[in-house]
Amino acid sequence: MAQIPTGSLGDSEFDRDTAVTRREPGVYDVDLSAGWTIFNALNGGYLLAIMGRALSDALPHPDPFTVSAHYFSPSRPGPAVVRTETVRSGRTLSSGQASLLQYDEEGREVERIRVLASYGDLDALSDDVRTTAKPPAIPPREHCLGASDGPPPKMAAGNAITDRLDLKLDPATVGWAVGAPSGKGEMRAWFGLSDGRDADPLSLLLTVDALPPTSFELGLEGWTPTVELTTHIRCRPAPGPVRVSIVTRNLAGGFLEEDAEVWDSADRLVAQSRQLARAPRP
Amino acid sequence: MAQIPTGSLGDSEFDRDTAVTRREPGVYDVDLSAGWTIFNALNGGYLLAIMGRALSDALPHPDPFTVSAHYFSPSRPGPAVVRTETVRSGRTLSSGQASLLQYDEEGREVERIRVLASYGDLDALSDDVRTTAKPPAIPPREHCLGASDGPPPKMAAGNAITDRLDLKLDPATVGWAVGAPSGKGEMRAWFGLSDGRDADPLSLLLTVDALPPTSFELGLEGWTPTVELTTHIRCRPAPGPVRVSIVTRNLAGGFLEEDAEVWDSADRLVAQSRQLARAPRP
Repeated sequence: MAQIPTGSLGDSEFDRDTAVTRREPGVYDVDLSAGWTIFNALNGGYLLAIMGRALSDALPHPDPFTVSAHYFSPSRPGPAVVRTETVRSGRTLSSGQASLLQYDEEGREVERIRVLASYGDLDALSDDVRTTAKPPAIPPREHCLGASDGPPPKMAAGNAITDRLDLKLDPATVGWAVGAPSGKGEMRAWFGLSDGRDADPLSLLLTVDALPPTSFELGLEGWTPTVELTTHIRCRPAPGPVRVSIVTRNLAGGFLEEDAEVWDSADRLVAQSRQLARAPRP
Repeated sequence: MAQIPTGSLGDSEFDRDTAVTRREPGVYDVDLSAGWTIFNALNGGYLLAIMGRALSDALPHPDPFTVSAHYFSPSRPGPAVVRTETVRSGRTLSSGQASLLQYDEEGREVERIRVLASYGDLDALSDDVRTTAKPPAIPPREHCLGASDGPPPKMAAGNAITDRLDLKLDPATVGWAVGAPSGKGEMRAWFGLSDGRDADPLSLLLTVDALPPTSFELGLEGWTPTVELTTHIRCRPAPGPVRVSIVTRNLAGGFLEEDAEVWDSADRLVAQSRQLARAPRP
């Protein structure tokens, strides 16, 4: 029987809104919550967490190690289904596939996202760490800026997800909110969930896609739709807020990459992700 | 009808050895060549190029934009089949899935690799480039070291792929070959194909996984099996050898990431990739 990683945390908005109900083996009914919209579409990281939870139940291993998601069309609040397939079950890793489907006006299934993932058990990994990566250079949390700190007005406008997240942005990466983007493709923040739920591997799938896009700091407004997002979960996060750094180095031909790192309160690199996204038109 | 990107190049070892024969729509017979083995298993980038070629034929767009591959078991030289599925066809992007299968002793199909990919047309992209990425700091090609430059003996030992590649390693990243690894997770090289075939989007799928593993420079010997490898092709490469830089920053819990960049002779960042791999045991 699969363990469902629920974090430390009992009843939380995130756990309620990413709940999956097994209809039959490998098939899960879900209700996509309007609480996680951004630009009126559901946040891609929220959707990924739902698919990750379904795979945690379907696969013999509990934790996402690497999750590759290709996004086909925007998802809307309301009913959806996650169809999973177990592709192989190994001793330390198992792999599976999941599709998130919604329904068109005739009730036909429309595939929104497809995921390939390999799962393992983070608690079974050795404690050996050899890293040259450094935590993001971000000021202490109390010196960073949240949605309640006056401007940035754009952070809140029409984005229900703002209320769900306890996001404190590095002042060096909020120029976009007052009409003065830095021109650097960087975004850094302290990330938590508003109701205090701690991070776990599933919430990290949300975290890597939850900051404002780096394109804002490049002076580009509007939606940056994800084409593909791959996330590696490298370590079970310690309790407390995490730090997130997102960097874009190459905007070319109308596409850009976003590389995210997530660090926990114990200074461990707990997640790395990269996405390919369409750049907003300048 | 799909265009098959064949590069500039007519008949080459790479094109012959990655040829796919359409058995029926979406299903391709292939013959995996023993010429691309490393540690007696077939190189993951070579296999990815074969799957990429099948998808180029099956999908309405010719060029891989982002390809996510999950590796299940080592592939052996000999017959195999690639089964593809077209998942969606959009105006500028189409997406599909491919599985590489071989046969067990009873003739049953065994899935080796599964890929999710989104394809487009690189020639249709704008020339707009805003990049802060810099080409790798690598000496001129004539100051770099190939398999014929005496040691490193390990580069050639039992690895047929060595003959297929025109690989010239940065002297700063070959310490492993003489028993003096630098301790840094870096590998840099000039990359070409031995028969002079120029780079194209399909050969870039090979290039990102063709250098010795960064773990060698971390002092770890042995195979570093790929769990997952995602590659973004960002630009059609100009003729001439390309430069490749691979960096590992975080080796933890027995896994490591390898981030690769490929730059062409026109100083364009033509490919980015990241893989999650199992680290050799120390």
